[in-house]
Amino acid sequence: MTPRGRTGPRADRTDARGDILSSARELFSARGFRGTTMRAVAEGAGVDVALVPYYFGNKEGLFAATLELPVDPRAKLDAAFAEGVDGAGVRIARAVVGVFDDETVGPTMIGLVRSAMTDGTAHEAVRDFLVNVIVEGYAIHLDGPDARERAALAAAQIIGLAVARYVLRIEPLASMSVDEVVAYVGPALQRCLDGP
Amino acid sequence: MTPRGRTGPRADRTDARGDILSSARELFSARGFRGTTMRAVAEGAGVDVALVPYYFGNKEGLFAATLELPVDPRAKLDAAFAEGVDGAGVRIARAVVGVFDDETVGPTMIGLVRSAMTDGTAHEAVRDFLVNVIVEGYAIHLDGPDARERAALAAAQIIGLAVARYVLRIEPLASMSVDEVVAYVGPALQRCLDGP
Repeated sequence: MTPRGRTGPRADRTDARGDILSSARELFSARGFRGTTMRAVAEGAGVDVALVPYYFGNKEGLFAATLELPVDPRAKLDAAFAEGVDGAGVRIARAVVGVFDDETVGPTMIGLVRSAMTDGTAHEAVRDFLVNVIVEGYAIHLDGPDARERAALAAAQIIGLAVARYVLRIEPLASMSVDEVVAYVGPALQRCLDGP
Repeated sequence: MTPRGRTGPRADRTDARGDILSSARELFSARGFRGTTMRAVAEGAGVDVALVPYYFGNKEGLFAATLELPVDPRAKLDAAFAEGVDGAGVRIARAVVGVFDDETVGPTMIGLVRSAMTDGTAHEAVRDFLVNVIVEGYAIHLDGPDARERAALAAAQIIGLAVARYVLRIEPLASMSVDEVVAYVGPALQRCLDGP
């Protein structure tokens, strides 16, 4: 191995992806989701700016990666709306419960929800993420001048489901089957998507 | 002032109410809501068991007092259901937003929601309280074999509203007026109370 020169090219770098993630974690924590640019992340990592989209697609994907999210919530939302707004409530409820009930990825998601409730930078970053990715992810599929209001209320319902079933483990909700939860949450969520 | 005898009557006690509260806090933390009896609280406080209902009515009232809850959630629920299940969604939404938006009592309620998310005894005690007081407080007013399921889902919706609007402060939900929030949450909550 050649010792790395102080200002020379980082030819020995083999973990650009890891360096981008470290830089992104630092910047998201310090500046929040909105205040962080892909360019600043690349500069912090000492890599070419083109490598960030190469590895992570876009800023949402990068943030999801820093959270070590095992699923892409925006992609799940897009899939649930692919067949239209009608029935999206049931499809979203099924997707959410499917992810949280999954014994591989569920614990990570539950930990994320819990950490969003605490103060500090994790809280801010997760809130930014919820607003920019989840709320917008709903709103883009809804019509009308109040699309963002309905989107935010729908997000609140899903947060309530996650907190009550998985964090507080309120019975009988915590013990209900996936089909039961979907049967109850789906129509209420649809009511929210459709508006008053 | 006479020094208190080791085993004599506590004739000098002037804060029986405060002693009951201290004993209750200790027992609720150690044994949870269900595992704590009014008798054990009285024994821990060294007072006659009749003093506990005298000061706090029942165990729910006692627990609410240990949380320093500025409002009685069970009484609010009963009031919302007094005119029947029809329209209860809107009335509950209005009561909840009214309490959390209130600048005097709101911060205490928000702190309670936040503390329920953390691990430990506060978490357990608040969860017990939610199950025993809030879920049962809904269920008692609902008909049908799935009354508790619908009650738990309704509780989850309210938790989601509280977390999203007041803890995470997700926009545009956090900035919506009381009337706007009620107009959106009321019907979705009603859908939940009515069942699939």
